[in-house]
Amino acid sequence: MNSFGRIFKVSIFGESHGAALGAVVDGVRAGIKLDAASLEADILRRKSGGKGTTPRIEGDEPEILSGVLEGYTTGAPLAILFRNTNVRSGDYDALKEVPRPGHADYTASVKWNGFNDPRGGGHFSGRLTLPLVAAGVIAKLQTGFDYSAEVIEIGGETCKDKWDGLLSSASAEGDSLGGVVECRIEGVPAGLGEPFFDSVESLISHAMFSIPGVRGVEFGDGFAASRMKGSEHNDPFVLEGSTVATSKNGSGGVNGGLTNGAPIVFRVAFKPTSSIAKGQDTLNVKSGETVRLNVPGRHDVCFALRTPVVVEALSAIVLADLQLISGV
Amino acid sequence: MNSFGRIFKVSIFGESHGAALGAVVDGVRAGIKLDAASLEADILRRKSGGKGTTPRIEGDEPEILSGVLEGYTTGAPLAILFRNTNVRSGDYDALKEVPRPGHADYTASVKWNGFNDPRGGGHFSGRLTLPLVAAGVIAKLQTGFDYSAEVIEIGGETCKDKWDGLLSSASAEGDSLGGVVECRIEGVPAGLGEPFFDSVESLISHAMFSIPGVRGVEFGDGFAASRMKGSEHNDPFVLEGSTVATSKNGSGGVNGGLTNGAPIVFRVAFKPTSSIAKGQDTLNVKSGETVRLNVPGRHDVCFALRTPVVVEALSAIVLADLQLISGV
Amino acid sequence: MNSFGRIFKVSIFGESHGAALGAVVDGVRAGIKLDAASLEADILRRKSGGKGTTPRIEGDEPEILSGVLEGYTTGAPLAILFRNTNVRSGDYDALKEVPRPGHADYTASVKWNGFNDPRGGGHFSGRLTLPLVAAGVIAKLQTGFDYSAEVIEIGGETCKDKWDGLLSSASAEGDSLGGVVECRIEGVPAGLGEPFFDSVESLISHAMFSIPGVRGVEFGDGFAASRMKGSEHNDPFVLEGSTVATSKNGSGGVNGGLTNGAPIVFRVAFKPTSSIAKGQDTLNVKSGETVRLNVPGRHDVCFALRTPVVVEALSAIVLADLQLISGV
Amino acid sequence: MNSFGRIFKVSIFGESHGAALGAVVDGVRAGIKLDAASLEADILRRKSGGKGTTPRIEGDEPEILSGVLEGYTTGAPLAILFRNTNVRSGDYDALKEVPRPGHADYTASVKWNGFNDPRGGGHFSGRLTLPLVAAGVIAKLQTGFDYSAEVIEIGGETCKDKWDGLLSSASAEGDSLGGVVECRIEGVPAGLGEPFFDSVESLISHAMFSIPGVRGVEFGDGFAASRMKGSEHNDPFVLEGSTVATSKNGSGGVNGGLTNGAPIVFRVAFKPTSSIAKGQDTLNVKSGETVRLNVPGRHDVCFALRTPVVVEALSAIVLADLQLISGV
Repeated sequence: MNSFGRIFKVSIFGESHGAALGAVVDGVRAGIKLDAASLEADILRRKSGGKGTTPRIEGDEPEILSGVLEGYTTGAPLAILFRNTNVRSGDYDALKEVPRPGHADYTASVKWNGFNDPRGGGHFSGRLTLPLVAAGVIAKLQTGFDYSAEVIEIGGETCKDKWDGLLSSASAEGDSLGGVVECRIEGVPAGLGEPFFDSVESLISHAMFSIPGVRGVEFGDGFAASRMKGSEHNDPFVLEGSTVATSKNGSGGVNGGLTNGAPIVFRVAFKPTSSIAKGQDTLNVKSGETVRLNVPGRHDVCFALRTPVVVEALSAIVLADLQLISGV
Repeated sequence: MNSFGRIFKVSIFGESHGAALGAVVDGVRAGIKLDAASLEADILRRKSGGKGTTPRIEGDEPEILSGVLEGYTTGAPLAILFRNTNVRSGDYDALKEVPRPGHADYTASVKWNGFNDPRGGGHFSGRLTLPLVAAGVIAKLQTGFDYSAEVIEIGGETCKDKWDGLLSSASAEGDSLGGVVECRIEGVPAGLGEPFFDSVESLISHAMFSIPGVRGVEFGDGFAASRMKGSEHNDPFVLEGSTVATSKNGSGGVNGGLTNGAPIVFRVAFKPTSSIAKGQDTLNVKSGETVRLNVPGRHDVCFALRTPVVVEALSAIVLADLQLISGV
Repeated sequence: MNSFGRIFKVSIFGESHGAALGAVVDGVRAGIKLDAASLEADILRRKSGGKGTTPRIEGDEPEILSGVLEGYTTGAPLAILFRNTNVRSGDYDALKEVPRPGHADYTASVKWNGFNDPRGGGHFSGRLTLPLVAAGVIAKLQTGFDYSAEVIEIGGETCKDKWDGLLSSASAEGDSLGGVVECRIEGVPAGLGEPFFDSVESLISHAMFSIPGVRGVEFGDGFAASRMKGSEHNDPFVLEGSTVATSKNGSGGVNGGLTNGAPIVFRVAFKPTSSIAKGQDTLNVKSGETVRLNVPGRHDVCFALRTPVVVEALSAIVLADLQLISGV
Repeated sequence: MNSFGRIFKVSIFGESHGAALGAVVDGVRAGIKLDAASLEADILRRKSGGKGTTPRIEGDEPEILSGVLEGYTTGAPLAILFRNTNVRSGDYDALKEVPRPGHADYTASVKWNGFNDPRGGGHFSGRLTLPLVAAGVIAKLQTGFDYSAEVIEIGGETCKDKWDGLLSSASAEGDSLGGVVECRIEGVPAGLGEPFFDSVESLISHAMFSIPGVRGVEFGDGFAASRMKGSEHNDPFVLEGSTVATSKNGSGGVNGGLTNGAPIVFRVAFKPTSSIAKGQDTLNVKSGETVRLNVPGRHDVCFALRTPVVVEALSAIVLADLQLISGV
């Protein structure tokens, strides 16, 4: 099920160390000004290079193969292609018999009878989020809403000044850190969402949990809401100018699964990177023996750092679809 | 979008105070032993009557209209009908101009131009979970897995001995409480889940966030995973007899979006009931004046108490579909 | 797969001799004036009673269970229920071992391991078109287009004056007749249809071939187009007032899978009724012996006579969905 | 809606004169032996070059970008890319104001507000069937059934000996011819098909009518069935060895929408090529004046000649999906 959406529909393909990755984006409105350069800013935000990210650096040059003519979308599907260039398959050969804890190595092998591509996680790699970011740019342009996601917590620490030290020491230990990303979407009109099953939260969480390494999603007050009283959590309606609004936003902008006009606010919990240099026990599934594993390869210490733009992209894809479905 | 699933597909209809509610369940295997009585135990678990639940008591008698012949499913879709009997529409008349905070009154009115059924939340009512519970029984029988969900926290309190007092005092204040439900599913084989977008977590969270009043969903270590190091969160593979297993279950039974054979474990955060007798300020959307509202009607102090069987039902619906898709 | 449509979605259930049949219609616009009486005219057109139709007469009283409040659609799904009243299960008992030629008795039994409901064709009965006709009324109201289907040929005879005699003599022989229905839809704007796979013809033919007993579907010049030259079949564009139109309609109102503003015109070929009193050889699948079968029960001599309103209904369901998808 | 299928799902993209065309094929079983060479034979069958086909000759070299590792499918989606090489955009410039009769020029322009790619029909070109043929090869391998489609009629002539003369004279006149393709699929087990809406005929006709230029689809006796009596059209069941079979195949291998084990047989009517050199009147949509049009460019005299492999491919795509859905 490598497609997402009903009308604005994104299909992705590719593997971490295969020839190429890409997305086919269907349901794009005709007449949107777009070229490969339009995709650059968001692709750059996802790139590695900063503190706590992998030394594997890819060109990430998008090629738009279809759906654009003379700088404008045509209404036909856009295919966007990224060639992989910086590939080191050899790094992964030893892992075939020894599945890495926390990875899809074992489960993919069960599902696909050992024919799965194990190189760099294959089709399960975070690298698949690259074409999603490109598709997200189109969705952002199509919806016209204002998306801003940022890391608000690393290794449990909310004070950004301390993150540098945390990343350095985790890296020195050969270990990794998780993080939390908060996303805020403004400018969304009231009434988006499709009960009963396609509530805004349902669709956004569905999209978020497809990002590799997500462990939790919460809206507005989130888990804390379950510890509040109704009189504390409810958002009173008020008039802002001539617009119905709420005086606070404990619901995260959604009532009954429908947007209420307040900013959509949600948080996504990312686990620590599974691939760590530090030794950990695991199993040789062929011999049945316990193995002390130090995962080779190049990995992010905290991949959550690269995900805010992915979170935005998937949010935009969800809302582009809801916008078309509701015809608003 | 009142349908969920690709092959095992559930469509629901009805309103809190309308003539009837129901579900059409498609993709049911032929030859499952089933009659209306098979549905009773789970329907009873969802019923009100206990401490902290509403005094509105409904018969909740299911009628199976199709898809069963001589006590066995036929392969054709099952339609299951529940007539509403204990309806008090009058309770809700005053709310048309004054949307209740935390409810869909306002957003549904925007979406449907004021034609929405406002009685008891109409189509947005938690009462819609009744046909889901019935559909869930069929999904449980079809999958054969072992589902157990329970409330693990009310109003932030994890010690069950103290819940009675919390409920009493919230009720006395005319206020409400939230809660957290944990669900554990055993017996699931490795390999269920459909990358990239239909990870097990994506589908389960999608289903969970369709339950009215959910604010968060997390798997395994959940949000706490974002505060752990990779060496702490990773689940080492081990051999249990001749089976590949993990020595702990921080992932909640899912690696790379695919089940790994360990129990699926997740938690759902429910907000406190929005309808409270206690006064709260809100808006008369016609006059623009602030109104002091005491929500009339009969409501649960803590509706989370009635949801574990709903959480199980939706989990089973997700897994029944994944089972058919993967052909395992 | 008892659902059809992406946004305007119809799910059906029921069996010929079960408790009830019905449809759940999702994606209905809020504010359409509707009650059970609105459905009567089309339900009556589908009813038996005329020459060449079965003596089994059903009440066909629709009950709208949800989605309508005070005479207007609410935006929530409509469930429409029909109770079966005139049921004679006994007629079909002998057929379990002897599948009727032309029916689904054998194939359904293979698919569902013998658990299928064999009474009157069960879920495969033409009686399932009853809830479709009801759903079609809603689709007609929602689209606002003008649908007219009629039988244009019975037993190969296009001269209506001769049909009465043909039906009488086929009935006297215990045999049955097929027919062709032509449908014409006016008022459709240009631009409906979703390339590549959801051309207007693709969706309409998909819907038509779900009607039991359809053997062929053709648009505009149809099969005759394959015997024409391009210069004969092409429809020249002309100006009608200020509107772009075509001077003839060999394409049936569709260019490149998209409506062109001309009437959509197509024909549907219905086979002769499979159930005939006249003796025919078939197989006892248990004993392996050849059996001389005279199908008992009450059957139409020419069921095509009852299908024009079904053809209209399914067309309207297709176009209601396309209208919502394209947002026109 | 450039995707087709529920589990075995094909998404296509590209334009006749754009950079590239391609398909993403999801739901492919892991472990199928496959490389680019596997696709050659069917791609060659679709190629032009024979009598009655266009002088535009493309390389049609497939590149498999993902989903295959060391010669075997991995279970992840396959992306297959074809670069366009022999492109002459200039041929089409004059057509922007003068839509060609029988083409999507006008309707696409309405749908996409003039932003559509008009070059060679853009996304509506028959060239889009190239990636479908590639996807079809995978579907054929996955289903293991035996597909054979052939042209049985050109310009109304069923005697193949006369086709050469017909094509020569139509070509000399600057005119075009239509044709009929018959497809026969053997080896299909009984029980495939998903009532009510996804009958085998529904899905196959849906797929066929997505091929540009199809005007009709019929199964078994087809339109002729509507002129037969029940006693003539019904297929008696017989025993062939120990297998239940039918003594003839008027139904085209489908009873009640489900395969019955006999060969699936259907015919597809293709219109004559719309682009003809011969002069025809049409409209300048800007000036409103009538224009005498001789369509430039390189075109098939009878494009039906190139479609049998496309018909097979789409049939295989339908059956691959049904096979996965039914789990047979």
